[in-house]
Parts: sequence; structure tokens; C-alpha cells
Amino acid sequence: MFNYREAELYCEGVRLADVAAQVGTPVYVYSKARIEENYKAVAQAFAQINPLICYAVKANSNLAVLTLLRDLDSGFDVVSGGELHRVMSIAADPQRVAFAGAGKTEREMVYALECQVGEINIESAQELEALERLAAGNGHPARVALRVNPGIDPHTHHHISTGHAGSKFGIDVEQIPAVLQQAAQYTHTRVEGLHIHIGSQIPTPQPFVEALHKLLDLVQQARGLGVTINALDIGGGFPMAYREGETAAPLDHFARAIVPLLQGTGLQVRVEPGRRIVADAGVLLAQVQFVKHSAGRRIAVTDAGMNTLIRPALYEAYHTIIPITDQQQTSDQQPATSNELTDIAGPICESSDYLGRERILPSVQRGDILAVLNAGAYGATMASNYNSQPRPPEVLVEGNTFRVVRRRETWNDLTQFELT
Amino acid sequence: MFNYREAELYCEGVRLADVAAQVGTPVYVYSKARIEENYKAVAQAFAQINPLICYAVKANSNLAVLTLLRDLDSGFDVVSGGELHRVMSIAADPQRVAFAGAGKTEREMVYALECQVGEINIESAQELEALERLAAGNGHPARVALRVNPGIDPHTHHHISTGHAGSKFGIDVEQIPAVLQQAAQYTHTRVEGLHIHIGSQIPTPQPFVEALHKLLDLVQQARGLGVTINALDIGGGFPMAYREGETAAPLDHFARAIVPLLQGTGLQVRVEPGRRIVADAGVLLAQVQFVKHSAGRRIAVTDAGMNTLIRPALYEAYHTIIPITDQQQTSDQQPATSNELTDIAGPICESSDYLGRERILPSVQRGDILAVLNAGAYGATMASNYNSQPRPPEVLVEGNTFRVVRRRETWNDLTQFELT
Repeated sequence: MFNYREAELYCEGVRLADVAAQVGTPVYVYSKARIEENYKAVAQAFAQINPLICYAVKANSNLAVLTLLRDLDSGFDVVSGGELHRVMSIAADPQRVAFAGAGKTEREMVYALECQVGEINIESAQELEALERLAAGNGHPARVALRVNPGIDPHTHHHISTGHAGSKFGIDVEQIPAVLQQAAQYTHTRVEGLHIHIGSQIPTPQPFVEALHKLLDLVQQARGLGVTINALDIGGGFPMAYREGETAAPLDHFARAIVPLLQGTGLQVRVEPGRRIVADAGVLLAQVQFVKHSAGRRIAVTDAGMNTLIRPALYEAYHTIIPITDQQQTSDQQPATSNELTDIAGPICESSDYLGRERILPSVQRGDILAVLNAGAYGATMASNYNSQPRPPEVLVEGNTFRVVRRRETWNDLTQFELT
Repeated sequence: MFNYREAELYCEGVRLADVAAQVGTPVYVYSKARIEENYKAVAQAFAQINPLICYAVKANSNLAVLTLLRDLDSGFDVVSGGELHRVMSIAADPQRVAFAGAGKTEREMVYALECQVGEINIESAQELEALERLAAGNGHPARVALRVNPGIDPHTHHHISTGHAGSKFGIDVEQIPAVLQQAAQYTHTRVEGLHIHIGSQIPTPQPFVEALHKLLDLVQQARGLGVTINALDIGGGFPMAYREGETAAPLDHFARAIVPLLQGTGLQVRVEPGRRIVADAGVLLAQVQFVKHSAGRRIAVTDAGMNTLIRPALYEAYHTIIPITDQQQTSDQQPATSNELTDIAGPICESSDYLGRERILPSVQRGDILAVLNAGAYGATMASNYNSQPRPPEVLVEGNTFRVVRRRETWNDLTQFELT
């Protein structure tokens, strides 16, 4: 959905230069068609087991993005009261909402009960106890899935691995029988499901297969304890390719390994893709403010930085960065030798504030606009006001039109909650 | 200013349990007396050269904090239009404001000109050219300091080193004469100063001394080019001790090395402390939501995480974490053996979301409140709404009273700028 046409980068039918001219920079731009396409690809890959797809709101929580996923009949995976508030505010069906999170406050649990969400994922014996008490007081029975920590290394970045031993997430697999016995005594919470989420950017199906074998074994054990598990939430974590030339394992590859284990079990399956739905549906546009040289390297300082997109600073994540006007196509004056090793820095007073380092870029000049690709996931949701920088607007493209779906913050907005 | 009294942690005369009870958690709490004490310590250490202290707003930009520093006659170092807007909104004297930043937009430069700030720090030849053009159009002459990249390794964390070769900050020292010649031709910008800021948490005075020798040499060179430099901005970066048992080099240690180089030169000196003024004047209070065990380790999940305080996740920064009630003092039922290796995790669905790992803590129970120390700098200013978590309130303590100086965000606030 992001392609050059006559040397100009487009999102669907919209020229990105037009977005930058009308809305300014920095700005996040999302493609509606790509989000829909990605959602349908997940549904199709797992069609044989007809899963409930619960989109992971944390990847991109913009209300317009949530609305278009709701219209595709997506459910939602939320991890806070704030995310639940978002999906309720677009009138999503609470029965299709799973509420997860290792640190739910009582206020959040009460809110989830009041909303009558389809599943509350419980991450500790203490949390189950608290929920039983709150559900008793509240009058709404709680439908619960136990999040299992299967003790598996998903072979991904240590920041995004969540299902290994000693992790803060879930209940160790060895402790599950005791928690099921605890649950069997409760009258307001009913354990109906088991849940895993073992990490992000999982490169191969093997960790899923290992984890599912453990879950299916637990389903049998639960039956022996008098608890009927009828739902399995297998989480997300399907990989995305961020670097040019790389390709991530296709969804079919995961489905071929996962589906045979679940088909015919009678279990309702939930999957929670986030990044896979929105990452490549978004770009961040940033304008070059200054170009300078230090110690022989070229540095382009843009108006977007770690405040706008923290992934490079936080995870050393790689995002492809390209100009929105392809000078090599537009001009014969620019010889190929104008390609130069370039650091793309942000405006923040901090050395880790780079969008990319040592990139081969053609002539980069003050005023040029760069597109940071694959910025649709964990971009805007992680933005901050560090250095008192207003957060950028978000734009949704649909065919030949676009609209602002979150407005740019102003300097006045920054202090609106402060009281001298 | 943060001490136990009869086993209860106080900030000045205020019991932190009372703040948590009335304002909720998580919450940042600042001590007015400590900020004042720290400011006065800087002024005293450098008294012989009577510097203009420009507090680095990025460390803690709360309007109440800025107001109390203004009342101490502090100037301000701002690095964005948003920060400049903050200091203007508390009616700070713009003559005592230095505007720095490697990626200033034209809108920000025009705003700085309109405010008639005392110094605009220029980080590239292109920026100087842009400022001259804008100043010509605007009618306000610009008073400029050139930020020099002295090419010095400050022996600190690579994320917070800013004055080494190849950095995005400043103008390489070799390029300064050419930029001075460029400046000599301009009529609306006047280069009056030189500026360095070589990093944060600089352990010894030696990098300052090296950098100052280079600056003083440049002052001579400038004179030869017909440019009179009358001000030196020596930046900040004085260290703070974060770990128990560590002590940072005292300010006197830096002053003894720096003052003799500058005394008698006739140069007006500016210093830009940030962390040193506010870091140990603030704590973050977080409530334990659940305690669990995984793979034999104890994990306390609190309601504050990388969304609230990102330094541990981003820099692997260490913050001492203590309970606000010292159970070892209050209770004989708690034997010393209840001390246990504990991970203090946050509520965010991400593996890097810890406030501290492998800490020796006494009995930690659901509902307990922990204080994360030295959280006054780069805490609230770097907070985000990741996972749709509302940002915490900020509280300022003054003697026996406290007041909320930024209110807690609500779930409704999260979506206020979104337009479905």
C-alpha cells in the first residue's frame, strides 16, 4: 500500500507529500486497506479452526483503527482499563473482549466485570482470589482464562520474550493444578479457558507447538479436577519483517503447525495478533531540519525522534527509512554516488535519539521528508512528551482520501493538567 | 528530605502514606526544600565566578517546579518550543533563558526570537543561516552561542554521552572558525557565546577541563576573526548517585577544577544543571497489586511501570526501592529472614517492564506501597500512555503540607484528541 508512483511515495491513492503539506510533520499515516488485508490474512490462515481474532489494542489503539477492526468483526485483547475504555467507547461487543495484564488494579477489574467482558485473563493465584471477591460484591460472574507461563524460550529479543521461567507473566505451568483447585471452590469466577502469550516476533512455529502441547495436557488435567476448559487463547507474536530483504515466516507456516493440534478438540480458539495487523500499515513522516557532518559522517536531524518512535532507542529496532520523493528517479543531476552513509537523528537532547544509523541514503537536504516504514505498531502508542514535544497527529488513508484521526498536540495541551 | 520516622517514610513533614491515601498511586512526590537546597549548592560551589544557573527544564518540567526555581532567581535551559512555552507561561525572564536543541523547527526559532530569549544555541552552520534569515524577517536580533562538539569522551553511558566525535550535537571544534567567519557576515544574529554540553553523569572534572581548554582556545581564535565571545555556557552533566552506598563526586570537586580556568577571564559563565537539582528531590510511589513466584523468584507487580518511569527499561538505570513502611522497625513478627530476592515489575505487557530486579526486600504484600527513590529527574517528563495507562499525578511537598501540581490523567483524557 506504500509505493512510489513517478518517484513520489503514495499510501494507497494518497500522495504522502500532500499529507505532510496539509497536516505537517511529524505525522503517523495508516492505510485502511492494508489493515483490512492483514486482518483477513489472519482469519484465512486459521479458517479451519474459526478462531476469535482478538486484535491486541496495545499495538495501535487509535479509535479509528479500532473502529475499522470492529467493522471486520474483530474482537479485542485489552491490557488495561484505559484500553477497555477505548473499545467500549467504540461500542465493541464486550463478549469479544479479553482483558489481560499482570498488574490489574481493583478498579480495572471492577470495570471489566461491569462491562461483562468475554474473558478475564488471570495471571496469579492472588489475582483470582481478588476477582472472586470483587465479582461476589459486584453481582456479575467472571469468565476467566488462566494465563499459563509454559516456561518456553521463544528465541526472540529478551525485551519481548514473555513465556520463559521467571517471567512476570502468567502462572507457572506447575502451579496451574493448584490454581484450578482453588478456582473449583469459587462461585463467582468460572475458569473456562487457558491462555498463553509467549512473546513477540517469534521466528518459527516450534515454540507455539511446544506451548500448545503443554496447554492440551493441562486441559486433560483440569478435567480430572472437575474443571471444563472450553477455550484456548494462544496469544499473538507472529513475526514481521522490518529490514529490507528480510521476510518473516508466513502465517500459513504457523497455521500448518498449530491448526492440526486444535482441530477437532472442540475448544474455542482465540488468537491475539497486534503487530501483524498494523505494523506494515503505517509510516511515520519526518522532516529533515538540518544536515550536518561530524567526524566525517552525515547527520540528518529530523523533527521526529525517540519521543515520537521509541523503538530504535529502546530495542535497537530497525526501521527502513526512505525519502518520500525518490530523487534517483526524478533527477539525472543526482548521480548514484550521492548515496552516503547517514545517521537520521531526532530533536531530543539525548544521544540515543536516532531513528536510524549508518543508512545509505541519497542526497538528503534540509526540508526533505523521510518516511519511516513499518511504524504502524508500537509507534504512536509509545510516544511521549519528552523534552515537552507535542505528540504527532495520526492520519488514516482510505483510497484517495485521508483524514486526521488524532489531532496534533499543542504547546498549551502539554500543561493542561498542571496546577501551579 | 526523605526519611523514616517511627518506621514511616516522610517527605519533609508529610507522611508518604497520607499522600498515597489521598492522591492514589502511582504518584510522583517532590520536596520543595530539597530542590531549593540543591539549587543553592550549585550557586555556592561556583560562587567565585557568579554563573547564571540555567536549570535544564527537560529533567523535570512541571510548572510548579519551574516556578519555585524562578523564585530562586534561576534561569532556564530549554530544548524545544514546548519547554520555552512552559517557562514563558510562568513569566520567567526571557533574558535568563537559553534555547538549545539539535533539531529546532522554524516555528520554534521564530518563537524564541519573539520571546527575545537571552541565548539561542546553534548546532550547525545550516541552523545559523536559517536563524539569520528568520531574524531578518522578524525584526528581533538573535543573540547566539555556538554549541561546540569538543570531541571528548565523558566516560559515561553511551546513551548520555553527547560531546564525542560523530555525535549529533554541536559543531565539530575544527569547523568553528568557518562558522565564526560565516557569522561575521550576518547582521541579525550576533555570536556572543560558546556552549558545550558533553554528557550526563560525568564522573570526574577531567572531561570538563579538557573541553574548557578547547573553548578558551576558540575564544582567542574568535578574537582573531573579529568576533568577541563574552559568554561561556559550560552545560550540565554533574553526577548523581543512584545506588545505595555510592556517592557521586561533590560539586566542589568540579568547581575546584573549573573555576580557576574561568575566573578573571571576564567571560559570563552559564551552567545548566538538571538532574543534580531535582533527581533526589523526588520519589515515585507505586502500590503492589500482586505478589507471585515464578521459577523460585518472588515477583511484585506494581501499578507503576515503564510507562511511568522508563529509565530502568531504557538505560538499565538503577533506582533504590524501599517500602514506605519499614516493617523491620514496626514488627517483631517479621524475622530478618523474610528478606527475599524480589523483582519489582510494572503493569505493562512487555518483558522489559521492571522498576528493579533482584532486590533484597522484606516481606512484600499485596497493597504495600513502595517508594522508588531519586525519581525527580527524567521520571514524569519521560512518562507515556503506553498500554493506554493514564499518566500519574505530581505532588509538591512544602513543609507539613502538600498539593497536587499535576492531576492524574483519566481514561477519557486518553482519547481527547482522537476523532473517529
